[in-house]
Amino acid sequence: MTTIAIVYHSGYGHTAVVAEAVAEGVTRAGATPKLLKIENAGQDFAAFIEEVTKADAVIFGAPTYMGDISAPLKAFFEASAGTWMKQGWKDKIAAGFTNGLTFAGDKNHALTSIFILAMQHGMIWVGSGQALGNVNGNTSAAPEAVNRMGYSIGVVTQSDNAGPDVTPPSGDRESARQLGERVAKVAAKFAA
Amino acid sequence: MTTIAIVYHSGYGHTAVVAEAVAEGVTRAGATPKLLKIENAGQDFAAFIEEVTKADAVIFGAPTYMGDISAPLKAFFEASAGTWMKQGWKDKIAAGFTNGLTFAGDKNHALTSIFILAMQHGMIWVGSGQALGNVNGNTSAAPEAVNRMGYSIGVVTQSDNAGPDVTPPSGDRESARQLGERVAKVAAKFAA
Amino acid sequence: MTTIAIVYHSGYGHTAVVAEAVAEGVTRAGATPKLLKIENAGQDFAAFIEEVTKADAVIFGAPTYMGDISAPLKAFFEASAGTWMKQGWKDKIAAGFTNGLTFAGDKNHALTSIFILAMQHGMIWVGSGQALGNVNGNTSAAPEAVNRMGYSIGVVTQSDNAGPDVTPPSGDRESARQLGERVAKVAAKFAA
Amino acid sequence: MTTIAIVYHSGYGHTAVVAEAVAEGVTRAGATPKLLKIENAGQDFAAFIEEVTKADAVIFGAPTYMGDISAPLKAFFEASAGTWMKQGWKDKIAAGFTNGLTFAGDKNHALTSIFILAMQHGMIWVGSGQALGNVNGNTSAAPEAVNRMGYSIGVVTQSDNAGPDVTPPSGDRESARQLGERVAKVAAKFAA
Repeated sequence: MTTIAIVYHSGYGHTAVVAEAVAEGVTRAGATPKLLKIENAGQDFAAFIEEVTKADAVIFGAPTYMGDISAPLKAFFEASAGTWMKQGWKDKIAAGFTNGLTFAGDKNHALTSIFILAMQHGMIWVGSGQALGNVNGNTSAAPEAVNRMGYSIGVVTQSDNAGPDVTPPSGDRESARQLGERVAKVAAKFAA
Repeated sequence: MTTIAIVYHSGYGHTAVVAEAVAEGVTRAGATPKLLKIENAGQDFAAFIEEVTKADAVIFGAPTYMGDISAPLKAFFEASAGTWMKQGWKDKIAAGFTNGLTFAGDKNHALTSIFILAMQHGMIWVGSGQALGNVNGNTSAAPEAVNRMGYSIGVVTQSDNAGPDVTPPSGDRESARQLGERVAKVAAKFAA
Repeated sequence: MTTIAIVYHSGYGHTAVVAEAVAEGVTRAGATPKLLKIENAGQDFAAFIEEVTKADAVIFGAPTYMGDISAPLKAFFEASAGTWMKQGWKDKIAAGFTNGLTFAGDKNHALTSIFILAMQHGMIWVGSGQALGNVNGNTSAAPEAVNRMGYSIGVVTQSDNAGPDVTPPSGDRESARQLGERVAKVAAKFAA
Repeated sequence: MTTIAIVYHSGYGHTAVVAEAVAEGVTRAGATPKLLKIENAGQDFAAFIEEVTKADAVIFGAPTYMGDISAPLKAFFEASAGTWMKQGWKDKIAAGFTNGLTFAGDKNHALTSIFILAMQHGMIWVGSGQALGNVNGNTSAAPEAVNRMGYSIGVVTQSDNAGPDVTPPSGDRESARQLGERVAKVAAKFAA
């Protein structure tokens, strides 16, 4: 059975909703998601490190705050230094997602930060793999389109100033599901 | 008199429209824009290099093709290597813009490529300096909002599959004008 | 039989030497390298595009000029737009390398440019996967150490102002061989 | 009197030594450095935010851990969100530095993270402005050369597995001094 760890931080609940959508995608592909929610930068990460080590793949997620991943996810990354020294996550499949208030807002930089961590560990990176949503009339932004903003490195969702029950919109949630599905399929193929 | 060189490439006319808006902003600030249009990667860039050397600031622009600035602008960057060896553009004010089909589409990477060139030359970088457009309901994308996508490194405009007479939308063009204005003001202050 | 396309540009022969080392690594892993040398930004890339399409994996390489990949490789990337629209390279294994005059010199940005292209195509990215060379005394730079500079996204080699017969040094060439080997192994596993 | 805030985190004392060298450079240029040392991600940053607000320029520094700036500096960045909403640091001069164990090690990404924060705030970025150190024989790495690794976005220093009394080497410390000097001069010119 393929297991996919989803390690994420969520400040106001929006990124948590996206993480759950990623997990649904993993399940849809016949694999088992393992949701690991980071609470703060100071917590003990030993159990999460262990779960990632056991998983076939890992998907990291965080809100973009001030143009980069939130500090709690960065703190988790630093806690993986011991595993890095042993190259304990080498060749594991990795991917990432982030949520923020705007379409751009340097969220590509936040995704790159996740990618860099994966590369330091010698992991193998899987991007969104999604064609551009809505290319013939992007100014309209169609909230129901998959990958409506046109990201490639990972999945980006955008939430308005409203609760996680109504935002990010349906297209973004489906983008997240498809990321989970894609990572699960690649991991299964690679583990075979 | 403050002079601002605007060096750009445009494949289908959209980036040219944006470059002209940048020039309008420069004029609005009481400075003189110098539009320098790159035709192709193989052309002779000597005269453009000279113009940039004489200017108080330079704003580079190109469409984002396959996630990065177009090859003709990169070719121009390489043609500046002789000037770089002499540090001939050191301390000049620099900025950048790009246009593409989607909101994201790795356009932040394209802007970073322009920024990197500026840093190699020891120039001083001025970003968009624009507050986020439309933050309380970004899913609607308001085409008349300034910085509707929320970029910070430089200005990004987004054009639909239509002619440059109708797209990018008005908000994007005003973002470009404000970039020209901001660069002209910073350059004037710095030259004083 | 696993086939690995190696698409590269080389200005003065150093990057060509590295490309050949990558090819040796591919052979060492029991796969077949296909060296595809780009001559200039204006050439016809149709045959190269076809070769990449047929290969199980592709490794892109270029010198870093003014902080980014050389314009001829960027031109090749743009020539792949038709394939991108059909998502013809989706799920192919990809990796990258670059050569330059200094240890840093924004070569990480050049590798990121290659990575971004791979992500646009929906490919799967394999980094260097190499532990840091020489960590207990890096100031000495040991030219025979593998990954002596500590790159993770891809392989970076550094050449002095001397001919490609003597530089980049042996450690860098072995880093390149190991990248070829690693990509070939991952591609074989993934194709199984 | 020009005042330059130097906000930094240091894990084992090496980055602190670099921060002090930056401060020496500020003093050398006739300006006043204000060293603000971050202890951990959970501390109260209100006083530091206030100091940066009062300063003419700010230089951020942190060790590179796992390929990016350390979590405590990221936490400080997040604490500046209130100031960002008011655009309280707009047009301030900004720069950055980082220290790590290797020549590359994704330290360019760490500098980019600092740059992005500066751009979100609408600040103006000053890079190292240093010509490449040691270009005719970089494999030898000359520890006494200024900018021996060839960085442009900011200053990078490299320390061996030894105490901050002996590492990073003299060339790196002088690079840091020159960054402080450069930022102070640009800030003075800009404030005039």
